[in-house]
Amino acid sequence: MLMKIELDSPLDMHLHLRDGNMMRLVAPLSARYFSGAVIMPNLVPPVNSLEKLLAYKQRLTEALYSYDFHLYMTLFFQNYTEEELLRARSHIIGIKLYPAGVTTNSANGVANILQAETTLKIMEELAIPLLVHGETHGFVMDREQEFLDIYRDLAIRFPKLKISMEHITTAAALKLLDEFENLYATVTLQHLLITLDDVAGGLLRPHLFCKPIAKRPEDRDALQQAALSGHPKLMFGSDSAPHPVHAKEACGCAAGVFTAPIALPMLAELFERHHALDHLQAFISDNAHRIYGLPRQAKTVSLIRQEMTIPQKYAGFGERVVPMNAKQTISWSYED
Amino acid sequence: MLMKIELDSPLDMHLHLRDGNMMRLVAPLSARYFSGAVIMPNLVPPVNSLEKLLAYKQRLTEALYSYDFHLYMTLFFQNYTEEELLRARSHIIGIKLYPAGVTTNSANGVANILQAETTLKIMEELAIPLLVHGETHGFVMDREQEFLDIYRDLAIRFPKLKISMEHITTAAALKLLDEFENLYATVTLQHLLITLDDVAGGLLRPHLFCKPIAKRPEDRDALQQAALSGHPKLMFGSDSAPHPVHAKEACGCAAGVFTAPIALPMLAELFERHHALDHLQAFISDNAHRIYGLPRQAKTVSLIRQEMTIPQKYAGFGERVVPMNAKQTISWSYED
Repeated sequence: MLMKIELDSPLDMHLHLRDGNMMRLVAPLSARYFSGAVIMPNLVPPVNSLEKLLAYKQRLTEALYSYDFHLYMTLFFQNYTEEELLRARSHIIGIKLYPAGVTTNSANGVANILQAETTLKIMEELAIPLLVHGETHGFVMDREQEFLDIYRDLAIRFPKLKISMEHITTAAALKLLDEFENLYATVTLQHLLITLDDVAGGLLRPHLFCKPIAKRPEDRDALQQAALSGHPKLMFGSDSAPHPVHAKEACGCAAGVFTAPIALPMLAELFERHHALDHLQAFISDNAHRIYGLPRQAKTVSLIRQEMTIPQKYAGFGERVVPMNAKQTISWSYED
Repeated sequence: MLMKIELDSPLDMHLHLRDGNMMRLVAPLSARYFSGAVIMPNLVPPVNSLEKLLAYKQRLTEALYSYDFHLYMTLFFQNYTEEELLRARSHIIGIKLYPAGVTTNSANGVANILQAETTLKIMEELAIPLLVHGETHGFVMDREQEFLDIYRDLAIRFPKLKISMEHITTAAALKLLDEFENLYATVTLQHLLITLDDVAGGLLRPHLFCKPIAKRPEDRDALQQAALSGHPKLMFGSDSAPHPVHAKEACGCAAGVFTAPIALPMLAELFERHHALDHLQAFISDNAHRIYGLPRQAKTVSLIRQEMTIPQKYAGFGERVVPMNAKQTISWSYED
């Protein structure tokens, strides 16, 4: 029996497409399988002006070839004037805030959020969502949990500001998600599948090393339960973050798991295993469209229940990236 | 002003010297700076008979050249007869038990310990110490703490058995150490210095990856406090565990930190920074001599307060090993 699912307009709500040759390699790998993605602005230097954003979008567009793929652009958070935000508004889906710009710990975080208050207030008025990498600079296993007070503070101070807790990894973050109407969240593929045991419980596995770091089994289980039940405020965001092999299998290995081209079949495998395929469409598309009020693209991606072996690497333009679970066989694949 | 300390008969109470070419490379690196070491039996196949042990000791002796270095040999734990243990007794300092032979969790652990009861009883009668790698197969951050119940059980069932909790990493293990007279412990250099943050808080650092994995800041602080105060039941055991570079900077990185040739100056630096140099002799030698009733070798190792840069690697016999903190400069060095 052939088992097949057609995903309607799948979105990746948190994606790193890099720049230059790495962008040329990975952008089409997302564009082939998703109808759009939220593009993170953490280039060097960061995407922190409309001019930079439009130029980056142009480079991305050229890298996409003929793929039909919507680029939901983001600005890098800093203090912006109302004029700047008015000009940028129609070009962005939100503004991404990184903790270095906010906080070294909870107390400073709040102090710095006060410094950012004017910009956040304008964003609230202009209905520009805030996307946050919510980690303090504390002990690596505690960073997200320590940041929850800052999320709470933001949610209370800016009740009309749409705040997305990006790539959440803990049961505690899920709990907070349900406490405030204006909080939303994305979760990655890897945080639905692995714990710190997979990264460092046996051999150390650099290709599973990411930030926030994978947490405890009870955290992974809570995230799974929320995604598999189609939690209406939880969206898929791969945080797919390619690094060249030499930066991963090295003396100091960069954080980031590359999942974009294999995320959908791996999600299908996970959702099917838990008899939750009914909720995959909500997780991969409907929730995000509703939360952000996005128009639906006329793009479907078909998956079939047929084994696929994940490639050992993706290479091109002089770049080489190893995906999560390279060389492993999974039970779903793309139809094409 | 020249600052110098002379360590009297320093011992490394937990050392992996491997076999073959790696042994030829690393054995002299320990022998040069220590008066003796407890040699772990986890070769492939393990050192689980007197014949294998004597043959291994012979290979080690040949690898030591003319260094004056006492090899305190251990057998790999399994069920042994009284006759076997009587024959082995004068050749070993103890028997090393690995958790795979004991437990997959606390409950099974106790069951399996009952299976091992006869051997443990004979060891108790013959005054052969038990050295234990105390980790369950649970979540990587919990493995040692989960094993504490097994230590407690062993300490109660075999009150005359000398039990060494090897390479402890948690404040909880230290607490248990003080509860039972027949419990002792070793601690490594790296667990006195680092936390999981150093392994995975920034870039992932394979050369700091070891088992048990480095824990939380409060654990590291408790271990430091015990070592720096000269806790009478705590001994230095480096767990120095060389792996070839290709097994460390790899897609799946082997656990083990190589510290033997730089442990003493790094310990001097740590103890001096905390104004605890007075207690270094107890930690590095006196406690172990007293606990195991060892004869004192007439060997001193002199350290001077003079900067030394840790080598990028140690190489020879076709092997190449990267030490902890390679290329970093420390404030103490050997006098030679």
